[in-house]
Amino acid sequence: MTRWAPDARGRLAQAALDLCSERGFEQTTVAEIAARAGLTERTFFRHFADKREVLFAGADELQALVVGAVADAADTATPIEAAAAGVEVAGVALQQRRDFAGKRQAVIMANAELRERELIKLATLAAAIAGALRERGVADSVAELTGEVAISVFKLAFERWVGDAAGGRDLAQLIRESLRELRAVTSG
Amino acid sequence: MTRWAPDARGRLAQAALDLCSERGFEQTTVAEIAARAGLTERTFFRHFADKREVLFAGADELQALVVGAVADAADTATPIEAAAAGVEVAGVALQQRRDFAGKRQAVIMANAELRERELIKLATLAAAIAGALRERGVADSVAELTGEVAISVFKLAFERWVGDAAGGRDLAQLIRESLRELRAVTSG
Repeated sequence: MTRWAPDARGRLAQAALDLCSERGFEQTTVAEIAARAGLTERTFFRHFADKREVLFAGADELQALVVGAVADAADTATPIEAAAAGVEVAGVALQQRRDFAGKRQAVIMANAELRERELIKLATLAAAIAGALRERGVADSVAELTGEVAISVFKLAFERWVGDAAGGRDLAQLIRESLRELRAVTSG
Repeated sequence: MTRWAPDARGRLAQAALDLCSERGFEQTTVAEIAARAGLTERTFFRHFADKREVLFAGADELQALVVGAVADAADTATPIEAAAAGVEVAGVALQQRRDFAGKRQAVIMANAELRERELIKLATLAAAIAGALRERGVADSVAELTGEVAISVFKLAFERWVGDAAGGRDLAQLIRESLRELRAVTSG
């Protein structure tokens, strides 16, 4: 039963990451990714539009998680607290896939096209957080600004986390530290 | 003397913007841009690597201006004050080219590739601000975070400014307002 298995998306994402880590993004073909995952190219294209997109496989799920946490934050939470709750949940989810996340970051950073797409995904996530804040009754301009700075906090904590070779520190904890840093920076 | 004129870059940028506004980015060719500017394609490629890059013609100069203002901020300025001085100078420079900036924004927003490149340019500007702050002796993590949030403030003020059809409000003033908003958001 090797041709059938659950979670074709997950297997394709893992195969793509392994191959891109070994030989680089440009040198990896969709046919090779599909073969490594034990699937056909046709199956690949049922799940992903192109070779770039497979490296962003979890982005929609992560965004749904973040938006859900912003929505579920206590009624008394300020906009930045609600947004922070959202990115912390992303931190907890990524913490469980530390090796994957670190390897993926190295592949993304090595390629200009992938870095551009990563920025687009982060901008989309910022807009999604802003949308979730608006749903909580937060004014437009505050919602947008809060979404943007929450992503800045997340991005810097994430870079620190993947750059921490010893791996001693939790992403969620680094996010909270970055947030404190932001408060110190803006109050100064 | 129509073939020779100073500021070929500026003329190419204006011609590109006019053509892209009239018929869209995809429908505009380098040959047409060069012809509209009264120059040859060869001259175009002496100044710009491709058709996208001509729409980002002023980015390096703007970055130099911002970095200079961060460096020149008073010794007593906090990191966020120095970074704000940088983006305010960008605001003053753009204010003098309001029509150009508004038209350009419409062209950028209409095309996914251009939006991606715009995000890259903003990320580069954030990194340049962080670099200028490090030169002032600001610690790495604070410098990076401050660069990121200064760009968030700038981006949102810029969007508000180009979206303000009546054009009554100054970009530098909107930047200062966004900064106050950021302070309120993060202290909350």
